[in-house]
Amino acid sequence: MHADAALAAQIMQRIDALAAVSDEPGRLTRSYGSPAMRRANELVAGWMREAGMTVCTDAIGNLIGSYASANATAKSLLLGSHMDTVRDAGRFDGPLGVLTAIACVQKFHETGRRLPFAVEVIAFADEEGVRFHSTYLGSRSLVGTLGEAELQRVDLGGVTLSEAIRSFGGDPTCLKSCRRDPAKLLGYVEVHIEQGPVLQQKNLPVGVVSAIAGQTRIEAAFHGRAAHAGTTPMALREDALVAASRFIRDAEVIARRHPGLVVTAGQLEVRPGASNVVPGFVKLSLDVRHEDDAVRNEACELLAVTARFDAAHRRTELGWEIIQATRAVACCPKLTSLLREAAASHAADGEPMPSGAGHDAAALAAITPVGMLFVRCKDGISHHPGESVEEADVRVAISAMGRFLELLAARPA
Amino acid sequence: MHADAALAAQIMQRIDALAAVSDEPGRLTRSYGSPAMRRANELVAGWMREAGMTVCTDAIGNLIGSYASANATAKSLLLGSHMDTVRDAGRFDGPLGVLTAIACVQKFHETGRRLPFAVEVIAFADEEGVRFHSTYLGSRSLVGTLGEAELQRVDLGGVTLSEAIRSFGGDPTCLKSCRRDPAKLLGYVEVHIEQGPVLQQKNLPVGVVSAIAGQTRIEAAFHGRAAHAGTTPMALREDALVAASRFIRDAEVIARRHPGLVVTAGQLEVRPGASNVVPGFVKLSLDVRHEDDAVRNEACELLAVTARFDAAHRRTELGWEIIQATRAVACCPKLTSLLREAAASHAADGEPMPSGAGHDAAALAAITPVGMLFVRCKDGISHHPGESVEEADVRVAISAMGRFLELLAARPA
Repeated sequence: MHADAALAAQIMQRIDALAAVSDEPGRLTRSYGSPAMRRANELVAGWMREAGMTVCTDAIGNLIGSYASANATAKSLLLGSHMDTVRDAGRFDGPLGVLTAIACVQKFHETGRRLPFAVEVIAFADEEGVRFHSTYLGSRSLVGTLGEAELQRVDLGGVTLSEAIRSFGGDPTCLKSCRRDPAKLLGYVEVHIEQGPVLQQKNLPVGVVSAIAGQTRIEAAFHGRAAHAGTTPMALREDALVAASRFIRDAEVIARRHPGLVVTAGQLEVRPGASNVVPGFVKLSLDVRHEDDAVRNEACELLAVTARFDAAHRRTELGWEIIQATRAVACCPKLTSLLREAAASHAADGEPMPSGAGHDAAALAAITPVGMLFVRCKDGISHHPGESVEEADVRVAISAMGRFLELLAARPA
Repeated sequence: MHADAALAAQIMQRIDALAAVSDEPGRLTRSYGSPAMRRANELVAGWMREAGMTVCTDAIGNLIGSYASANATAKSLLLGSHMDTVRDAGRFDGPLGVLTAIACVQKFHETGRRLPFAVEVIAFADEEGVRFHSTYLGSRSLVGTLGEAELQRVDLGGVTLSEAIRSFGGDPTCLKSCRRDPAKLLGYVEVHIEQGPVLQQKNLPVGVVSAIAGQTRIEAAFHGRAAHAGTTPMALREDALVAASRFIRDAEVIARRHPGLVVTAGQLEVRPGASNVVPGFVKLSLDVRHEDDAVRNEACELLAVTARFDAAHRRTELGWEIIQATRAVACCPKLTSLLREAAASHAADGEPMPSGAGHDAAALAAITPVGMLFVRCKDGISHHPGESVEEADVRVAISAMGRFLELLAARPA
């Protein structure tokens, strides 16, 4: 039987092999339904079969490897992650979760052992949503929340999602067949790189996720008055950028005072944007996330009040528009507890941590309990070619997930 | 003889006539050497002759109307302003000063009176520098600081300044002939719209200028680290926009604590500029002006220290580059005192005020004492079609300038 260290080495080789399967030369981009996605799925299907799984593809193109239970009527535990990437992506975001799940099944297969539940490893066809600007196409198909209207979305080349599904070998008229019966599911557990710096900072190879944070996206506008930079005394200005700067500074203070809250002004536009003109207008984006919806909503109210104060303080008018609000998704306490116990036997324990980024688990939580295990990545860098994970940490993830499956098998619901 | 009220009405008509003389249909744009500039100069030359002046054009194209003194060896007092405009300009910036000067000469001419000094009204051919990105071409020709290298500057159509001078009827090889002998000059006095809101706020029709502010232009860069907006805790961020915002807020506080100081962040660029990414880099422009160079330089040092503190406080690296520094130009105490006395007889007195914007007077100060009279404009709006001046305020400007000439005639140096 392969030792976890050997399986980790194998995963690193497979990660490299998949990184070479790209829509674009010289950089890694795999979008839904592309020829690169097809080749990547062929590779992964082969590895699933080597690990003793039967392989099928559902109507939207999710690749599913099944490792049957000894008990034919047993529920299924779903494992997996996604195979698509952002543009110019790193190589671990997505594939690491799929390959770790395959490695865990491979260990049981090599000793001929079956579990009291079926294991299905799912390689989701679309999580990032780059091609159709619609995230979680793969996992939402299992939930049944992919609507007709979305099938008419078009990519930059004018191809509809419906056509893309068909040319990927799927069937847009049969998406209902992707749906899973919650009664037949034990849960969904996903391994994913952290995409943040917390584990590195805590010196932990892996971490268990408590919840996937809720998110509010806000567009704030400060309407002041453009004026001559030389002739307009400070006291007579209605400077939109000074007002916005006061607010950005205050927003950071608010975020720091609420543990776990993150508030980000990522985009900022200044008009007219000339060095000798007092800015008359500023528009900025605000991204607010927390694992507790009540904390996030209270923070958003405090931010709105603060923005109004800062705008008025510099005699500008405030525009405040909530663009999007997504509720937090709590991980299943039992799965989280077992993951934590499993991880603790292989690495120093850490408090469960929220996931600030969205994952397929967030979609699947609508039909089944979910759990997540994060793997440390270098400097928190993700969605970038510099994304990097240590082989030793992958080994810990394999060991922890193997232990988790053992614990789950020993303690049925 | 025309009363000042009639002259003011005439100036408003002439302002309207000149506003229709544009390089672009539907909006006012007159750049150096253009056909519109030529037509505008023809109109102004006619008005100069009507006012009893002999008219000539110098080698760069400045239009000069001369009203001789009774004393053939007397020095000249220069009056005037510029005829070129920014793109999509207001109608008063420049022409108001030329037309007010002509009106003052007209008054003396209509009574056949000569002054103990010659008066020359100069309509400068280029102050804004829109076409060749080189300001004060007109007034610098009189000073003699227009260099050979500048003649090779090209406009967007590839035409050199040298060629433009020639096709405007001038002679680029004879620019030395434009130079004026300081010994033969009494001074230069310019009437100009304020281009700021101070006179309106003080409810004064005109104001005397104490100095033309010095200016420092700085480019500040904050180098942080781009990171995921969801997964990067506040405490682990190196957010370039938060650092820059702290600085913009602090810079405004510094400006407000130094009377007369203006500090403006007018341009700001955020990278990568995505709503879900913590900004890794911010570049901003800083424009610092004050009439006292010592105050401005001390403020710039304090701003640099503050920027370093704010950058370090958010663990970002600061780039700080002084792009340009221009010294303040003090107005002549005697001319300013006479202007103030003249203005006080026609309107409530106000303390002399600095000019935050640059003017031809700043260039001419190198060879002769200068003075300036500002005229109130609506809401401080300038460089914009909304630029607006009341006819009643123009009347006050004519009266004050007429009185100033009387006072100067009565009190020779």
